[in-house]
Amino acid sequence: MQRYFINNTKYEINKPSLYLFDKEILHHITNVMRMREGNLIYLCDEKITYLVSLTKIEKEMIEVEIKEEIKEDKNLPFEVCLAQGLVRKEKMELVIDGVCEMGATSYLGVDMERSLIHLDKINKDKNERLNKISKEASEQSHRNQIMKVLPFVSFKDFLKFSKEFDLCLFAYEKTKEDLSLKEILRTKQYHKVLILIGPEGGISEKEVQVLKDNNFYPIGLGKRILRTQMACFAAMSYLAYEWGDTDV
Amino acid sequence: MQRYFINNTKYEINKPSLYLFDKEILHHITNVMRMREGNLIYLCDEKITYLVSLTKIEKEMIEVEIKEEIKEDKNLPFEVCLAQGLVRKEKMELVIDGVCEMGATSYLGVDMERSLIHLDKINKDKNERLNKISKEASEQSHRNQIMKVLPFVSFKDFLKFSKEFDLCLFAYEKTKEDLSLKEILRTKQYHKVLILIGPEGGISEKEVQVLKDNNFYPIGLGKRILRTQMACFAAMSYLAYEWGDTDV
Repeated sequence: MQRYFINNTKYEINKPSLYLFDKEILHHITNVMRMREGNLIYLCDEKITYLVSLTKIEKEMIEVEIKEEIKEDKNLPFEVCLAQGLVRKEKMELVIDGVCEMGATSYLGVDMERSLIHLDKINKDKNERLNKISKEASEQSHRNQIMKVLPFVSFKDFLKFSKEFDLCLFAYEKTKEDLSLKEILRTKQYHKVLILIGPEGGISEKEVQVLKDNNFYPIGLGKRILRTQMACFAAMSYLAYEWGDTDV
Repeated sequence: MQRYFINNTKYEINKPSLYLFDKEILHHITNVMRMREGNLIYLCDEKITYLVSLTKIEKEMIEVEIKEEIKEDKNLPFEVCLAQGLVRKEKMELVIDGVCEMGATSYLGVDMERSLIHLDKINKDKNERLNKISKEASEQSHRNQIMKVLPFVSFKDFLKFSKEFDLCLFAYEKTKEDLSLKEILRTKQYHKVLILIGPEGGISEKEVQVLKDNNFYPIGLGKRILRTQMACFAAMSYLAYEWGDTDV
């Protein structure tokens, strides 16, 4: 059944009725899906999903009747921003799709020393397209929230951005003195996690030092060498598993 | 530095010398890489990797001097066969690549009810090509072993094949009565694990019942709906994490 995200759109509730005003959703329901009164859809607002029946379809408003409130929280218990050194378009789309399914809150492309593409070469319309991919993946994986694709940043701006987080990690071959991912996840206090995966060429030694100086922990993702896309998927899977996503 | 897998090839050791007789490796060293005496390579034999220097290059034999024996075990502690309902070529190649990086022992395509392609439509040369992809991914991820791509099987033959394993799992929406993946991995005894991920269309109800009748446990892979390729990556990541792959 069709799902719509209403958490960032205009709507009003007067139970059991709900009034939708979002133009894009209205267009999709009436013109794309050609739905009629009586049809059922899901409306997702963060932690609540409404199963509703269309009761009145007008040009600028749709009235629906709430049939059921489903309190399903499909989010991970903590916010996770998955940051990745800039990679080429096809690879980035693949990663966005995958980490969205795994429950990331946001995705951020970072211009790094060994990135094969850099900020100045990136089409400005790209972000819109990537957010569309993320929206579709969010729908398909039955998330309550759309994963945000943030505007790409320079490495310098990324460091500033990292100050918003209380746990910052980067995938790197760790030494014996470093804590393991498991130890970090089980002993530190956090609500907002930032995890950086290098581009194809990896993270440069200079960047490693700067990251450490900015309170990032190096974490090993396993015994084998993972390519950048697989490193993103593994990192998200490890967090989800540690946080009990498979327990329910 | 170039790595060669010698665990399935003909060689002799008379320390510190090692004599290579494998035609394919000989060809690669002499004609493709055009190596000379004095060049260094890695030779991987299961749990030992040799750093060696080429000392004599002849037509049917190469003699090398062992410089260092590196006892690096990059395998997961248990055997894992990742089985997947047959999917299209591009998707299968992507999955083979990824689960190889994550440490699977073997990959098996299974003809299932909702597969979009079936056994009779599959090119017989395919297996060779897939094994080549697996070999390259094994090299790139610095594994000691090549992940095997097994010949595709019917669902019926898959059930027979499953008898070789002491823990059989399949990804499916589990009910409250079912054990979670974590509970299974922490309470059961096992050395050889088989895990089945459905094709794009999922596992049919009939297949679910047959799997349960054949001692397969249903396991949930998380709160969100994962597409078949991501389900493969997540399942392998969960096993690796649970078994301490990130701890070292």
